[in-house]
Amino acid sequence: MGGVIGAAVLPVNKVLAKKLSGFDPGDTTKTPGRGPGKLGQRSKYEHPVKSPSDISSRTPLQDMYSTITPSDLHYERHHSGVPDIDPKKYELLIHGMVTKPMKFSLADLKSFPAVTRTCFIECAGNFRTGKEEMTPQDILGLTSQSEWTGVMLSTIFRETGVDPNAKWFLAEGADAAVMTRTIPISKAWDDAMIVYAQNGEAIRPEQGYPARLLLPGFEGNMNIKWLRRIKVGDEPWMTREETSKYTYPVKDKIRMFSFEMDARSIITYPCYPHKIKAGWIEIRGLAWSGRGKITKVEVSTDAGQTWNEARLQGPVLSKAHTYFRHLWEWDGTSTEILSRATDETGYIQPTLQQLTAARGTKAGGYHMNPITSWQIKPDGMVLFKPE
Amino acid sequence: MGGVIGAAVLPVNKVLAKKLSGFDPGDTTKTPGRGPGKLGQRSKYEHPVKSPSDISSRTPLQDMYSTITPSDLHYERHHSGVPDIDPKKYELLIHGMVTKPMKFSLADLKSFPAVTRTCFIECAGNFRTGKEEMTPQDILGLTSQSEWTGVMLSTIFRETGVDPNAKWFLAEGADAAVMTRTIPISKAWDDAMIVYAQNGEAIRPEQGYPARLLLPGFEGNMNIKWLRRIKVGDEPWMTREETSKYTYPVKDKIRMFSFEMDARSIITYPCYPHKIKAGWIEIRGLAWSGRGKITKVEVSTDAGQTWNEARLQGPVLSKAHTYFRHLWEWDGTSTEILSRATDETGYIQPTLQQLTAARGTKAGGYHMNPITSWQIKPDGMVLFKPE
Repeated sequence: MGGVIGAAVLPVNKVLAKKLSGFDPGDTTKTPGRGPGKLGQRSKYEHPVKSPSDISSRTPLQDMYSTITPSDLHYERHHSGVPDIDPKKYELLIHGMVTKPMKFSLADLKSFPAVTRTCFIECAGNFRTGKEEMTPQDILGLTSQSEWTGVMLSTIFRETGVDPNAKWFLAEGADAAVMTRTIPISKAWDDAMIVYAQNGEAIRPEQGYPARLLLPGFEGNMNIKWLRRIKVGDEPWMTREETSKYTYPVKDKIRMFSFEMDARSIITYPCYPHKIKAGWIEIRGLAWSGRGKITKVEVSTDAGQTWNEARLQGPVLSKAHTYFRHLWEWDGTSTEILSRATDETGYIQPTLQQLTAARGTKAGGYHMNPITSWQIKPDGMVLFKPE
Repeated sequence: MGGVIGAAVLPVNKVLAKKLSGFDPGDTTKTPGRGPGKLGQRSKYEHPVKSPSDISSRTPLQDMYSTITPSDLHYERHHSGVPDIDPKKYELLIHGMVTKPMKFSLADLKSFPAVTRTCFIECAGNFRTGKEEMTPQDILGLTSQSEWTGVMLSTIFRETGVDPNAKWFLAEGADAAVMTRTIPISKAWDDAMIVYAQNGEAIRPEQGYPARLLLPGFEGNMNIKWLRRIKVGDEPWMTREETSKYTYPVKDKIRMFSFEMDARSIITYPCYPHKIKAGWIEIRGLAWSGRGKITKVEVSTDAGQTWNEARLQGPVLSKAHTYFRHLWEWDGTSTEILSRATDETGYIQPTLQQLTAARGTKAGGYHMNPITSWQIKPDGMVLFKPE
């Protein structure tokens, strides 16, 4: 932490000395900088990037200082790549158990009363473990948050009319996977949206340009990108993505249609590959729940023996990444730090042991939200603790 | 608005017909799209850009759908360009009437308890008029909003200690203009921050990388970018930017030290160069105040004869851009649409006539926040109404 300095060594005097001795090429006050541009750029000293595989790329959560994910760092998970869609040719068809089958252009969608909502999206399979050298991006990078703008699906359904016996709707994407999921109609009357803007501007291609379904709190793949068709019906369609995929074992049964993402949290500072020094440290991280607001995040700095309530950065929004911070004085000895989230339903983020007890040993793959721990080594090295 | 269609002309059947007749190169479901990347990109069909001059570039407010300005579209106003600062060499000096003069590295600043706050920044000179062919970007593009993260200046001042007789502090930038302003010390104990992050990631060079002063609600130039020095004192320094610049005539006197930006608003849809059609239209826009929360935005669709309260998009934050929306059925006749903002101090955005009456005919240049109008022509063309 900054040292006390006397008047004789003030940097301003150093600058004066340099002025007298000659030109200092590193002195930014001596040469005009570059002028304003059409688009700003990141500093050449900053390189946040996603870590792409063939099918996904992960948000660098450890580089994030708050809750909005810059649009170009929003995680990606595609089933057959990003289609290139001309917005002028875009059409959304609504049909099935509706009074009036209709199709909507992008301009049509934008002409309806609009709503803006900040919420996270998270892949159902967002959890990786296995080794100590893992960052938050490696472990939980398949979640991001944006300020989304669009039209409530209920507004569109009031336009087409919906049969009172309708119970489900099918949403279909225009990608080469023709990604298709079935959603309970109750979500349409609750908070489902068709969104065309993200963080103030047009939605990005990787997030569904020109329009996607947004189902706040529901698992990511249901938020159909490049949305081209909604069909209203009275039973689930049992598509590939809700039968062979996105299902998981719970003891001797298979659980299908897991909608909400359960409450979870992760400490994003300090984390691997940081090396910390003894003294005061602000532990920071993200918590979120698909069922509503985060009401509490607790942090343990003694491997789970005792817990302290962290400060939540307001405004705390429903179904939204919530930033938490907790001051801790590290004494330089080996320990573990971990966090657990509680949401407004009273649900408390479980341990992996609790998850396994509830679901059986074959569980895994989807909707795994265990408490995760960081090991602090005596030399200050921070390592993930794989279970 | 999307037409009613019969089963015989459903697009799905068109697709089927194309499937049977041969390959459709425009069918995005037939070819895998590009895979996930390290950084996302805008759609090739979207080109939001700032409009740069030699000294500034303006945010395309008419392209924004909500309140967060994408970082690369944040307005710029430099007095001598953007300096290139190596964060490893960055130092902030705090001296003057303090107990312990100290310097802080960027890592030092980041080690303090952090705070995140969403607020706007606006240039004191943010208002242009003169012709009908002007967009919101042309008229009011020198304001933008970000989710800022950093340390409270009060936290830093508690570290250095501040003489109880101190009344002002000087903030100095590392740009070639050595931009320098004097701020009342009360702002430091209220809500001033030193911020190093913007919209989740490191602050952009154009906005002061690696750290800037953030004075929520105060005129833009006081939010010193590339902050390198703060000196605490007991009287204002009377720098160039608070004597020859950023002052303005009020009747027979010159007003100096205008801190807060007054409440204002602008309709961003419809606006020039839109051409609208008769029927229901959602009027949309932004309102903000440097003195607190926006409590009301009224929209007139009859040239100011009657006013209707618009819906405000929540959460409404203090000293923050607030999105408003109002449904209007245009009957196809010539009219004017305008908006006026009220903030929590009870202040109501004035007309240009009211501003002129209060300040005299020589007023202008800075802190001009008049109600602005859009003319709607019978053919639907929307034009700015310069006063």
